[in-house]
Amino acid sequence: MEETARVISDGDEVLLYVNEKKSWIVKVEKEKKFHTHRGIVDLGQAIGQPYGIELMTTMGAAMRVLPADYLDHLERIMRKTQVIYPKDTALITMLANIKSGSRVVECGTGSGALTSYMATHVSPSGKIFTYEIREDFQANAKKNLEKLKLSEYVEFKLKDIMTGIDEKEVDAVVLDMATPWQVVGIAYNALRFGGRIVSFSPTINQVEKTVEELRKSGYVNVKALELIMRTYKVKLNETRPDMVMVGHTGYIVSARRC
Amino acid sequence: MEETARVISDGDEVLLYVNEKKSWIVKVEKEKKFHTHRGIVDLGQAIGQPYGIELMTTMGAAMRVLPADYLDHLERIMRKTQVIYPKDTALITMLANIKSGSRVVECGTGSGALTSYMATHVSPSGKIFTYEIREDFQANAKKNLEKLKLSEYVEFKLKDIMTGIDEKEVDAVVLDMATPWQVVGIAYNALRFGGRIVSFSPTINQVEKTVEELRKSGYVNVKALELIMRTYKVKLNETRPDMVMVGHTGYIVSARRC
Amino acid sequence: MEETARVISDGDEVLLYVNEKKSWIVKVEKEKKFHTHRGIVDLGQAIGQPYGIELMTTMGAAMRVLPADYLDHLERIMRKTQVIYPKDTALITMLANIKSGSRVVECGTGSGALTSYMATHVSPSGKIFTYEIREDFQANAKKNLEKLKLSEYVEFKLKDIMTGIDEKEVDAVVLDMATPWQVVGIAYNALRFGGRIVSFSPTINQVEKTVEELRKSGYVNVKALELIMRTYKVKLNETRPDMVMVGHTGYIVSARRC
Amino acid sequence: MEETARVISDGDEVLLYVNEKKSWIVKVEKEKKFHTHRGIVDLGQAIGQPYGIELMTTMGAAMRVLPADYLDHLERIMRKTQVIYPKDTALITMLANIKSGSRVVECGTGSGALTSYMATHVSPSGKIFTYEIREDFQANAKKNLEKLKLSEYVEFKLKDIMTGIDEKEVDAVVLDMATPWQVVGIAYNALRFGGRIVSFSPTINQVEKTVEELRKSGYVNVKALELIMRTYKVKLNETRPDMVMVGHTGYIVSARRC
Repeated sequence: MEETARVISDGDEVLLYVNEKKSWIVKVEKEKKFHTHRGIVDLGQAIGQPYGIELMTTMGAAMRVLPADYLDHLERIMRKTQVIYPKDTALITMLANIKSGSRVVECGTGSGALTSYMATHVSPSGKIFTYEIREDFQANAKKNLEKLKLSEYVEFKLKDIMTGIDEKEVDAVVLDMATPWQVVGIAYNALRFGGRIVSFSPTINQVEKTVEELRKSGYVNVKALELIMRTYKVKLNETRPDMVMVGHTGYIVSARRC
Repeated sequence: MEETARVISDGDEVLLYVNEKKSWIVKVEKEKKFHTHRGIVDLGQAIGQPYGIELMTTMGAAMRVLPADYLDHLERIMRKTQVIYPKDTALITMLANIKSGSRVVECGTGSGALTSYMATHVSPSGKIFTYEIREDFQANAKKNLEKLKLSEYVEFKLKDIMTGIDEKEVDAVVLDMATPWQVVGIAYNALRFGGRIVSFSPTINQVEKTVEELRKSGYVNVKALELIMRTYKVKLNETRPDMVMVGHTGYIVSARRC
Repeated sequence: MEETARVISDGDEVLLYVNEKKSWIVKVEKEKKFHTHRGIVDLGQAIGQPYGIELMTTMGAAMRVLPADYLDHLERIMRKTQVIYPKDTALITMLANIKSGSRVVECGTGSGALTSYMATHVSPSGKIFTYEIREDFQANAKKNLEKLKLSEYVEFKLKDIMTGIDEKEVDAVVLDMATPWQVVGIAYNALRFGGRIVSFSPTINQVEKTVEELRKSGYVNVKALELIMRTYKVKLNETRPDMVMVGHTGYIVSARRC
Repeated sequence: MEETARVISDGDEVLLYVNEKKSWIVKVEKEKKFHTHRGIVDLGQAIGQPYGIELMTTMGAAMRVLPADYLDHLERIMRKTQVIYPKDTALITMLANIKSGSRVVECGTGSGALTSYMATHVSPSGKIFTYEIREDFQANAKKNLEKLKLSEYVEFKLKDIMTGIDEKEVDAVVLDMATPWQVVGIAYNALRFGGRIVSFSPTINQVEKTVEELRKSGYVNVKALELIMRTYKVKLNETRPDMVMVGHTGYIVSARRC
C-alpha cells in the first residue's frame, strides 16, 4: 500500500497490467516467474527498476508494472465474491453518512470488501463493528483487511446479530444479509438518534419486507433504490454502450432512526 | 454538525421533517416563526426539548425536529445546483481512490458539494485543492464548506486550471468542467505515478474527446460509464419502480497515470 | 385516415404541428377558430390548401398542417389514459405473435389503444374479441375505434372475463387487468395449442403471481421482462439522454399454451 | 406455418422444446435422428402423434414437440445475425406506422428478419421494397422469407440505395445501414407527404449525424431513443432482474416527411 514509492522492491505487491480487461496483482520476488497465457514473466528482474517499466514475457508480450493500490485490491476481492459491487459500496457508504470518526455496525462481514471501504472512511478515529456467523468468512475477511492495512479500524465479531448488537449509540448500521427485516428492530436500539440504516439485498421481496418493517419500527425517510451501471465502448465516431452488461446487483434500502 | 446532541438548543440548525419528499433545514431561534404552506411553526418552542419531538403548525400539521447531519446539508446543496448527484459523487470519490490523507486537485469548485464529500474522506490529514474561475461560485462554495465545518481540509484557488496546476505528486485529479480533455495533459504532470483522474460530463461528446485524449497522453485503464439510479415505490403487494425518474445526470470517465 | 390526400378538405382531422413537444389533432371546418396560448388560428382558411402549409396565429406563431395518421391518434389516446405506452403495445403485439388473420382475446378494453394496434395487425381477416366490465370504458373505446376506422376488426364484449371466455381456439390472449393470474386457467381453455398469452402489469407482485400460475397451469416458455425507453436530446457536440424520463410503465409476462 | 394443425406430419418443422433457454426447430422425417448433448431423439416416431407429446432421448431426457410458429422462426433468424432484436423490430414497425396495405422501402435487407416482421404487417395488400448490395445477404434473406411464407409481400432489390429509390409516394422508409444520414435526402423524395422514416444504428455518432441531416432536410417530429430490455428471474419470494443482460442493441431515430 506504499503507493508513492517509485522503485520496485523485493516483496512489493504490484499490478501487472496488460489492458483494461486483463491485469494481475502479484508479489515481486527474486527469481520468481509468473505464468500467463501470453507467456512467462520474470518478476525478479523488476526489482530495483522504476514503477512504470514494461516487462516482456517469453512470448514477447509487454506487461507494465504499476503500484497496486487500495482500489486494485478492492476490485479483486469483489470479483472473487461477486456479491457486492463498487458502485453499491460507494453509495451505501454515502447513504449511511459514514465519515472520519463514525462508529458503524455491519452485518455480515462476508469477504470484508464493504468493511474495508467503510474502514477507509471512518479512519483514523472511527470503528467498524462487523458481525459474522461463519468462521471461515471471518477468517478470510481478516486476512483481506490485514493486507489492506485497515485492521485497526475494524472489530470482528463472530456472533449472530439476531441475538443482539453489543454497541450503543452507533452512527450507522449497514446490512448485507439474507433477512435484513429481522434486524430492523435490533438496529433501532443500537443506533443513536438520527443515525442511518442501510441495507443491500438482491431480491425485490427482501426490499418489500425490509421497507415494511422499517416503517412499522419508527424509522423515517425510508427509501428504496437501485443503481444500474452502464459501461461504454468509446472510440472516435463509434461510441456506444457495451453490449453485455451486469443487469442487476441488488437493491439498496435506507432509512433514519427517529 | 453536532449530530449526537439530544436536546435542541438556541441556534441549532435542525431538519424539520414532514415526509420523504418534504423537509427543511432551519435555524432554531427564540420567537422565530417558520412559514410553510401547511401553516406556521413556532421554532422557539423547540428550544430545550429533546430531538425527535413533533411541532404542530397553526394549521394542525405535525413536523418532526431531527438533527440536520452532513447528508441533509449535502442533499440541499446539490438540489440547488442540480449538476452533480449523490450517486455520482460517491462513485467519483471511490474511482479517484480518495481516502484519509489523500491530496486531491479538483476543478471546478462549483457549489462545493463534491468538494465537501471528498473533504470528509481525506480528513483529517489530506487536502482538496479546488480550482475555480468564477469568484461568485467560489464565495458560495466557501460558505457551504464552512457551514459543513470542512474548510480546513480545502484550499480554494481562484485560478484557471488551464494555466497550470500548482501542486505536484497529487493522488487524484477530479474534473467537473466543460472541457475536461484540455486538462488531461496538465493533470498528468500534477499526478503522482499511479494516481487517478476522474471526470464527470453531461454529454457523450465530452466523453469521447476526453477518452481519446487520455489514451494519447499515457494514461492506462481508461474507462467510461454512467450510473442510472432507479427509485422504487414500495408497498406490500404493490411494489414497482417510480414512474418519473431522473433519466440522466452525466457520464464518468476514469483513468490512471502511468 | 385518408393519409395520402394532398389537399385539405372541410371536415378533415388534421395535425396542427408546432414542434416535437406541441401539436394538436383538430377538425378543419369553415370559419372555425382554434385557440392556443400562442394565439388564435383560423382553421377555415386551410380548406383547399395543400397539406404542409403553415397557418399563422393572431400572435404571429407558425403552425404546420399535417395529415393526422393512425400513430398521431394512437399517441393521443394513450397520453390521455397514461396506462399503456407505445413501446409496450408494440412488443406485446409481437410477443402474442399477432398478425394478419389472428383471432385474439383481450381483457380489458380500457381506452381501446392496445385494441386498436392489435386490430391494425389482424386486419383484414382476423378479429379482436375484447372484454370489459365497465360500460363507460367500452363506450369510449368504441368511439376511439370508430374514429380510427378499425371497428370492423373488433368485437366488443361487456362481460367479466372471470365468468369465462366464449371464444375457442384463439391464437392469443392479451391481458391488461389488475388480476391477470386469475385468468390464466380460463385462457388456457380458450387458446389453441401453441397459442400465446401476454400480460401487462405495473407491479412486480402481479408478475410474481402470474408467472407462478402460468407454470402451474401447463404453459411453457414463461418469460418476464420490462422495456425501458430512453429518449435523447441530440445536438451536434452536445448529445445526451433526456434528464427527465418515464422510469417505469409496466412489466410484460409471456408464455405459450402447451 | 400451419399453426393450428393438431397432428404431427412427415415434413413438419417443429419446435423441440426443453426449457426457456433451450429449444430447436427441426424437420420431422421418417427415421430421422436428432443428436443433442442430452441424447438422441428419434424424430420419426413423432409422426402421427398429437402436438404436445414428449419424446424421450436415448439419455432419458424429455423433449416436447410444439408447432414452430412465426415467432420461433424469427427469434432464430435474429439470434444468428445478432444485429437487430425483437424489441427494436416491434417498435420500428410501430414508429414507421406500418400496417395492412402500407408500401415500405427498407435498406438493407440483411438477414430479412426485420423485413419479415414488416411483411406480416403490410400483408395482404401492402409491399416491402427491400434494398441490399450484398448478393449473399439477399440470397439468405430470400430463403428466410420463403420459409416464413412471406415472399409475396416483399420485392427484393439488389441495388445501392445511394443511387436512388425507384419507388414513389411510399408510406415509410426504414433504414438499418451504416450511413443512414446519407439516405435522408433520397428518402425524402420517395416518401409521400406525412410519411415516416425510421433508422436503427448501434452508435451514438450515427444518431447525431442522422438527426442533424433530418432537421436540415425538411423533416419534422425528429426523435431519438433507445429501448433497454430487462428480463427477470421470477420465483416466489426470490424475484429479481437477471444478472447478465444485453446492455445495448442500438438507437432508433424517427421523423416525418413534411
